Amino acid sequence: MLEELKKQVYEANMELPQKGLVTYTWGNVSGIDRERGLFVIKPSGVEYEKLSPEDMVVMDLSGNKVEGEMNPSSDTPTHLELYKAFKDLGGVVHTHSPWATSWAQAGRSIPCYGTTHADYFYGDIPCARGLTKAEIEKDYEKNTGLVIIETFKDKNPIYVPGVLCTNHGPFTWGKDAGEAVHNAVVLEEVAKMAYRAEHLKDGISPAPRVIQDKHFFRKHGENAYYGQ
Amino acid sequence: MLEELKKQVYEANMELPQKGLVTYTWGNVSGIDRERGLFVIKPSGVEYEKLSPEDMVVMDLSGNKVEGEMNPSSDTPTHLELYKAFKDLGGVVHTHSPWATSWAQAGRSIPCYGTTHADYFYGDIPCARGLTKAEIEKDYEKNTGLVIIETFKDKNPIYVPGVLCTNHGPFTWGKDAGEAVHNAVVLEEVAKMAYRAEHLKDGISPAPRVIQDKHFFRKHGENAYYGQ
Amino acid sequence: MLEELKKQVYEANMELPQKGLVTYTWGNVSGIDRERGLFVIKPSGVEYEKLSPEDMVVMDLSGNKVEGEMNPSSDTPTHLELYKAFKDLGGVVHTHSPWATSWAQAGRSIPCYGTTHADYFYGDIPCARGLTKAEIEKDYEKNTGLVIIETFKDKNPIYVPGVLCTNHGPFTWGKDAGEAVHNAVVLEEVAKMAYRAEHLKDGISPAPRVIQDKHFFRKHGENAYYGQ
Amino acid sequence: MLEELKKQVYEANMELPQKGLVTYTWGNVSGIDRERGLFVIKPSGVEYEKLSPEDMVVMDLSGNKVEGEMNPSSDTPTHLELYKAFKDLGGVVHTHSPWATSWAQAGRSIPCYGTTHADYFYGDIPCARGLTKAEIEKDYEKNTGLVIIETFKDKNPIYVPGVLCTNHGPFTWGKDAGEAVHNAVVLEEVAKMAYRAEHLKDGISPAPRVIQDKHFFRKHGENAYYGQ
Repeated sequence: MLEELKKQVYEANMELPQKGLVTYTWGNVSGIDRERGLFVIKPSGVEYEKLSPEDMVVMDLSGNKVEGEMNPSSDTPTHLELYKAFKDLGGVVHTHSPWATSWAQAGRSIPCYGTTHADYFYGDIPCARGLTKAEIEKDYEKNTGLVIIETFKDKNPIYVPGVLCTNHGPFTWGKDAGEAVHNAVVLEEVAKMAYRAEHLKDGISPAPRVIQDKHFFRKHGENAYYGQ
Repeated sequence: MLEELKKQVYEANMELPQKGLVTYTWGNVSGIDRERGLFVIKPSGVEYEKLSPEDMVVMDLSGNKVEGEMNPSSDTPTHLELYKAFKDLGGVVHTHSPWATSWAQAGRSIPCYGTTHADYFYGDIPCARGLTKAEIEKDYEKNTGLVIIETFKDKNPIYVPGVLCTNHGPFTWGKDAGEAVHNAVVLEEVAKMAYRAEHLKDGISPAPRVIQDKHFFRKHGENAYYGQ
Repeated sequence: MLEELKKQVYEANMELPQKGLVTYTWGNVSGIDRERGLFVIKPSGVEYEKLSPEDMVVMDLSGNKVEGEMNPSSDTPTHLELYKAFKDLGGVVHTHSPWATSWAQAGRSIPCYGTTHADYFYGDIPCARGLTKAEIEKDYEKNTGLVIIETFKDKNPIYVPGVLCTNHGPFTWGKDAGEAVHNAVVLEEVAKMAYRAEHLKDGISPAPRVIQDKHFFRKHGENAYYGQ
Repeated sequence: MLEELKKQVYEANMELPQKGLVTYTWGNVSGIDRERGLFVIKPSGVEYEKLSPEDMVVMDLSGNKVEGEMNPSSDTPTHLELYKAFKDLGGVVHTHSPWATSWAQAGRSIPCYGTTHADYFYGDIPCARGLTKAEIEKDYEKNTGLVIIETFKDKNPIYVPGVLCTNHGPFTWGKDAGEAVHNAVVLEEVAKMAYRAEHLKDGISPAPRVIQDKHFFRKHGENAYYGQ
């Protein structure tokens, strides 16, 4: 079942090591079929070079495995909460990509210092608060999803397609698995350039809102004019 | 029309990802035929792996599309202003290359700390002032060109073949599209080494003018003796 | 003799340059056959591209060469001490991988700033004290092993599968030569991200113990649930 | 003439871009035949992909071109002075490799922070003083050689096979062209790790002399025991 979606999710997973976003098995991608209410995700801890489309695991939105011989990614409950709360998401990615993870380890949101950031993320890329002891000890992966959702209570997840989890790493998303990976690549570039910009100027300020608006809405929404 | 120029511009565009200067579609190259008053530029938002020479868009210097099925790069009005103001330019490049963009995000010109810089850029690589709200909201890309031109009112664009745009990224140029890309690669190297030199020495000073002169004029002008 | 082990150790050695952990001959891997009390190690100063499985040198735990035409790695006495003291090790790796070596040169242990670290190393990755003049001048390589063992007097080497040696570089280990290389790769990633996290936040603190516990024991021990 | 030496020098030149030490034409290697008093060097400003062994230029130690259709590297007078002053050199390399050049731009010698450095360079890798105005304006490349020689008046160039030139970049050398390139690679690695070690520890000190001695003389001189 869901052969086309499995193939898409498989290919999106394979893109992670190709783009330099993951070492070993440190990442996972999922994609959802909204009509059927089923999502497809990478199995847990399997090396990328050994994956095939058939290895993808099919889950329902109650967290039951519907198809697949292997255990799904240990981060599956996080993906699940995101799909339930953010109705427009078609794909979710988690990585430990090094620049984004460094910001997450510092517990800092990434300010928007320029147009590369503003072309994809509207405003800061937020860092979710650290989990409490209770949230970590029981249902850790589910609570990781819930704290992301809490972080977005005043934000539009389509305008800000990613987040950092304190002491952990990034999650990104998009309209499908491929776009979620695309946003993971962008986040890594943006995280790198923000680090360097801060080290080039003490007391640096974010880019003015007007240029953030210009770039974001040049590519998104009804007045977009970038591309074909 | 302009088949040879299209091919040159296509190849110069393809060099951007090969040299590690662009991620996804974050860059564009153009080249001009001065006799005909027409320039050729990459279409907007098209992936490099899908480009072909025939996809290049031909524009006149009034901003009209003369040939091509696709929309030209959204940065076309910037290229246009540069060609009109700087009569010796044969090619223009825009990228979001990470080191140069980090300086642009910090809003800083790159001081000349050594001979690698002085071999190609005479003095600072300037950072243009940020645009005003009005300049951003209307004719943003054209105004980006105009603020670059303003930055060069006391500079020779042939001696300083590139600029940083605050909160945005670099533009470079040259006698043709290939040389413009060459200068984009040099700028990225120079930006990287200037960052690191500053972090190795508090209160670092630029290289003495005499060594900047020596290196720049060893490679440029009538007394040049570098090369064959 | 030990053909299978030689092949494993050869392949683990070859992985070092493939993973970007060594320049020239700056690294070595060994693996042990605990039943026979013999270990296999790379010959000293031989280029990786010229190595073959037959070049691996077989040593006993008294430091005698049992088989092999070449001299064993000059670091052999360090490997030997580690095998004698830490009974569960099956493989040992030494590299000068740049991020881990930078921490070693600074004489600093790597704090656990996040889950990437906690997935593999429980708590700090310690930096062993510098050797005394006497320890350096006589039996330097053996004393390097002894000071590592001293560093672990209150630590479990299976929970913390690596160490930094002051002014020198890292050693890692694992249940076999392949896992020891795996841990060397992880250490390098972790060292890089810890450096960057510190430069993103003054006064950064390690990740809370509860999240370190969660991640470490999600992958290790009887309650592990990561993987298949 | 000197076909074997030309081939060696050609191959050593080609190694520079392969090892990531040069961008475009920013480097050159030479090698000398001491019996004949002739050295072979890369032609000036020729792209590496277009080089062939026959393009190498043969020079005598008075600075006359003995064979070759092209101009020799503009840095030829620097190589020449080094060969005349340092009688044991068989090969010389100049690059603008980014880490070493960053130290040169900062005008700083590289302290010995660890064994990677001490395995190849005994003590600091010195930064030569900046040239005076007069030294730059006339016979610049020759004076670059002379200031290097001045820097080594109390140093053994075999023990310290490289130098940084203020505001410029590194020169390295060795018993032949290949070893000179080897030392250029080592210098770049050492420069990178020294930068990072300094940023990990305020007030960092060089490695104790005793460990520098141990490592340097483990690989060099009559008591060496590293390798086969």
